[in-house]
Amino acid sequence: MQQQVSVVTLGTADLLRSRRFYVEGFGWTPVFENEEIVFYQMNGFVLGTFSTPSLETDMNRSGLTTPGAFSLAHNVATQEDVEPTMRRLVAVGGHVLRQADAPPHGGFRGYVADPDDHAWEIAWNPAWTIDERGLVRFGL
Amino acid sequence: MQQQVSVVTLGTADLLRSRRFYVEGFGWTPVFENEEIVFYQMNGFVLGTFSTPSLETDMNRSGLTTPGAFSLAHNVATQEDVEPTMRRLVAVGGHVLRQADAPPHGGFRGYVADPDDHAWEIAWNPAWTIDERGLVRFGL
Repeated sequence: MQQQVSVVTLGTADLLRSRRFYVEGFGWTPVFENEEIVFYQMNGFVLGTFSTPSLETDMNRSGLTTPGAFSLAHNVATQEDVEPTMRRLVAVGGHVLRQADAPPHGGFRGYVADPDDHAWEIAWNPAWTIDERGLVRFGL
Repeated sequence: MQQQVSVVTLGTADLLRSRRFYVEGFGWTPVFENEEIVFYQMNGFVLGTFSTPSLETDMNRSGLTTPGAFSLAHNVATQEDVEPTMRRLVAVGGHVLRQADAPPHGGFRGYVADPDDHAWEIAWNPAWTIDERGLVRFGL
């Protein structure tokens, strides 16, 4: 079967607050939005921010909680880009979970939670390649 | 900034149980693994399954819970592929959250939780395009 994820959907309590974090913080542009969902075309898949009650209805499950046992990462081009990116995210409603430092496996990274407490690692990892379309390849 | 996610990391209580779900259920091949993490090279990004205590240490936060307020989706090529894919995932430790049916926006989909209760939507959506490398493009 294709080694493929089509959508990553984040539940949100306040769609406009979330939209501000992603549009003004990361500088991303929605590809579609209405009153309950905002979609972003990403590097080979789609990111959605979706009203949590609507997500619960769609998956037929209630009681979704935060912080969930997952994280997302966004890689930047240089070590010097990590902290300014974190500061930009904090300025639009994020909060720092871990100040940037060097992990055991190399590189440099910190963590910022979005306004719904979803964790983002902001990382510089020189072992991984990222092409001009944003396609990321694992490397050691 | 590049509209890019480099990693989606799922916390897991039992790495081998999780590995079985992804390798035998989805049929995916790890690109790297050790005793606390398994990485899969996906369509433009990397999926990681990581011991939840290690994830908590890395992000400097305790108390990660499931089910978290998020979901992932995997799209299949035809409507007829949805239910057999769900059955294959259930056979290796998943459980059905929502039996497959037609959502209001079109297509056909159901939800299966992985052994750590992370929700996967298995979807057929004829409006979205997926190329031979698995790169997914939003469509209406």
